[in-house]
Amino acid sequence: MAGNGFLGSALSVVNIGLKSFHEALGQQGAASIHVDWKPPAASADILSRLDTPDVDAANAVALARLTSAQPTLMDVARAGDVVPGLEPGLLLHAGPPVTWDRMCGPMRGAVLGACVFEGMAETLAEAEKLVRAGKVRLEPCHHHSAVGPMAGVLSASMFVWVVRNDGPGNTAYCSLNEGLGKVLRFGANSADVLRRLAWMRDVLGPALHKALAASGPINVRNLTAQALLMGDECHNRNVAATSLLVKELGPALLKTRLSKAVIRSVLEFISSNPHFYLNLSMAACKATADTILGLPGSSIVSAMARNGTDIGIRVAGLGDRWFTAPAGMPKGLYFAGFGAADSNPDLGDSTISEVAGIGGFAMAAAPAIVQFIGGSPEDAVTHTRRMYEICAGRHPQFKIPILDFAGSPVGVDVRKVVDSGITPIINTGIAHREPGVGQVGAGILDAPYSLFEDAARALAGART
Amino acid sequence: MAGNGFLGSALSVVNIGLKSFHEALGQQGAASIHVDWKPPAASADILSRLDTPDVDAANAVALARLTSAQPTLMDVARAGDVVPGLEPGLLLHAGPPVTWDRMCGPMRGAVLGACVFEGMAETLAEAEKLVRAGKVRLEPCHHHSAVGPMAGVLSASMFVWVVRNDGPGNTAYCSLNEGLGKVLRFGANSADVLRRLAWMRDVLGPALHKALAASGPINVRNLTAQALLMGDECHNRNVAATSLLVKELGPALLKTRLSKAVIRSVLEFISSNPHFYLNLSMAACKATADTILGLPGSSIVSAMARNGTDIGIRVAGLGDRWFTAPAGMPKGLYFAGFGAADSNPDLGDSTISEVAGIGGFAMAAAPAIVQFIGGSPEDAVTHTRRMYEICAGRHPQFKIPILDFAGSPVGVDVRKVVDSGITPIINTGIAHREPGVGQVGAGILDAPYSLFEDAARALAGART
Repeated sequence: MAGNGFLGSALSVVNIGLKSFHEALGQQGAASIHVDWKPPAASADILSRLDTPDVDAANAVALARLTSAQPTLMDVARAGDVVPGLEPGLLLHAGPPVTWDRMCGPMRGAVLGACVFEGMAETLAEAEKLVRAGKVRLEPCHHHSAVGPMAGVLSASMFVWVVRNDGPGNTAYCSLNEGLGKVLRFGANSADVLRRLAWMRDVLGPALHKALAASGPINVRNLTAQALLMGDECHNRNVAATSLLVKELGPALLKTRLSKAVIRSVLEFISSNPHFYLNLSMAACKATADTILGLPGSSIVSAMARNGTDIGIRVAGLGDRWFTAPAGMPKGLYFAGFGAADSNPDLGDSTISEVAGIGGFAMAAAPAIVQFIGGSPEDAVTHTRRMYEICAGRHPQFKIPILDFAGSPVGVDVRKVVDSGITPIINTGIAHREPGVGQVGAGILDAPYSLFEDAARALAGART
Repeated sequence: MAGNGFLGSALSVVNIGLKSFHEALGQQGAASIHVDWKPPAASADILSRLDTPDVDAANAVALARLTSAQPTLMDVARAGDVVPGLEPGLLLHAGPPVTWDRMCGPMRGAVLGACVFEGMAETLAEAEKLVRAGKVRLEPCHHHSAVGPMAGVLSASMFVWVVRNDGPGNTAYCSLNEGLGKVLRFGANSADVLRRLAWMRDVLGPALHKALAASGPINVRNLTAQALLMGDECHNRNVAATSLLVKELGPALLKTRLSKAVIRSVLEFISSNPHFYLNLSMAACKATADTILGLPGSSIVSAMARNGTDIGIRVAGLGDRWFTAPAGMPKGLYFAGFGAADSNPDLGDSTISEVAGIGGFAMAAAPAIVQFIGGSPEDAVTHTRRMYEICAGRHPQFKIPILDFAGSPVGVDVRKVVDSGITPIINTGIAHREPGVGQVGAGILDAPYSLFEDAARALAGART
């Protein structure tokens, strides 16, 4: 690890399992500790088939793509106009595919709210009839170059961030953030929730579209890199990044012909929501991660997403295929009046953050986040340190000051997960389990081990 | 110290010298280490006369005033209209009193520039004749409820932040920040520097005045507290605080009748200067520190300021009296093309930050600052830890996440400085030693010990 440690304790790496990784670290001049942990016999067999120079070479390509991405905000546009295949009658949702009968409460709430918002139904009850009759198509955001936080429901009339990865030229999309509490993405769907969505469609989205036309593209990677120096991890803490974005958007809005009243309403809406940056960051992470989708031979995770019923991952070398397991239950802090019994299982595409090396992986940069999700600043550092164990490398731009500006861990290697038994840490919001309620808290959890073993086994199988 | 430490090392206090402080810490449940360090015999005599219950009681009052201050931004106004006694023909400057013949280069440059700016002279040469002829009065900002960064030159036509300390009701003032590099406060005085000052007088100041009339008062303490959670220490790193301020000012400006073009120029100016918040913070710190000016018996420092020739401190129990020593030389990082040989001695009133418990004292909150001033993140933590040794207490609102949200050290006790030999750490900008050049870098230094011994001796003498 980079240089000397913080508070006099030398930074070190705990290596568990395969000595080859330990030795590789040693060659890079890093201190590491080898712990004898043996994966199950079946896993050991998988690992022996994946611990090969060609997988290493493919992963080096994957790491280079993940760390050289230049996600750039190009536009804010109506989803139906830009998101590939997002036709009327189709709703996108978070996570791997899921049918209505297996769909969790908050995602059902969001789907029904979106049906009413799109004018497909007059009431929530009518919407439910339509959905049950199979008259509303439901597909994952991830299948349309998009991501969505929590329920992640995206419909044609909503506006999205349009983020292009300069160089490769691929583009990704994410909705605009509604704020905290009683909002569609947490399953709320009352009239005030839909009124806010209408304002976002009629005022916020078009205003941001005009602002970006006036300002030109905005480099999202630089905003994230700065925010990590300012105590954000850009998944569950976005206060610095949102503030930096406001500094860009204010003058841009003032270059347009919009009235001062409209500009003010837009700036007040954004400024009052410290998570506004999240969705932009997610689009940037999706634009980054999609560059390794289908990279032959690579054991790096290209997507991790939850639909509130299942959690799924994709691995670069296996293309579009999802590996799933039951979604876990976050541990965290609850808003007043709510508790663990209200909590829905883990939900949302926002884990694209961790795939791209921020969020839970960069938590050491954001010690103040523990006020929102629980735990201590020391825990935050420990989480980041553990993630170095399962990642292919460090991000050259995403630096963590208190770790002597070490780059954040990036590129989850399913081999290392299987080898170490360490799984990705996830920062997340917590939705109420019933439709119509909304957010009840925020917390963290570990992704389930079986996902990574399944994916590693499939990758090993694909090579024989 | 609060709770368990960071990275597994228990937070501890190193106590040097008088065991009474060590014992007091022990009573508060804190781990501390006693080190036998003996102050000089003369100092030991001073300490024996000041280590009394009535000084302790006065200091408890001082600490309560410093930590309960509620600095609130009320207005931005023309200095000549609001700063007490700032008449035409008078220029205020940073630090303790200094005459023209002893004045450092950058302060001379700023004085001459201000004379031209105020129309007292047509040229810098003419201005110098006026000053040498004694036709321009020069007094410290601190004598007029004001503070100024670096040269700190304040004249009647400039606009100032007006910050009231709610509760006590006292008010303090500071100029608006011009940006980095070639600016008046670093001694530059060319036509472009004066043009910028004219724009600040004619556009920026009046616009902010109107914005505050529209928005109502803004709580500065809360902005600083948030910024400390976002990696600022609010002296040499103000990027988060400036961003938070922009979030307040944008909507406020849009409530006024100002044109979009003017609002945009104001937001672009502020957004492009990550130090814009500094001067507002300084006014807030001055409004805080002035509440202990003249508090009988207290050995807490009420002001610390440098004029580039001398550094001076005031101690609460000794009212307006300055104790001075030669200004030190900062160590830091230099802008391209400059080095230590270009550096002026330590300059400016911005050390009011450290008096109020932020700046160098809160550096542990701002590990990324070492990119600007040099050193390592570990150094930043060490500086804060050392300052606990010489402070009366901790700030209940200014919290440092990586120290388990411990409050920042606040209230420098000259007894503890004399007792420990530890002097306040100062974060500072570095001005070129010649007039007319500007900023050449940023760094840190320790305040000289003699100031505190002199003040302690005087306080002991005043009590016999």
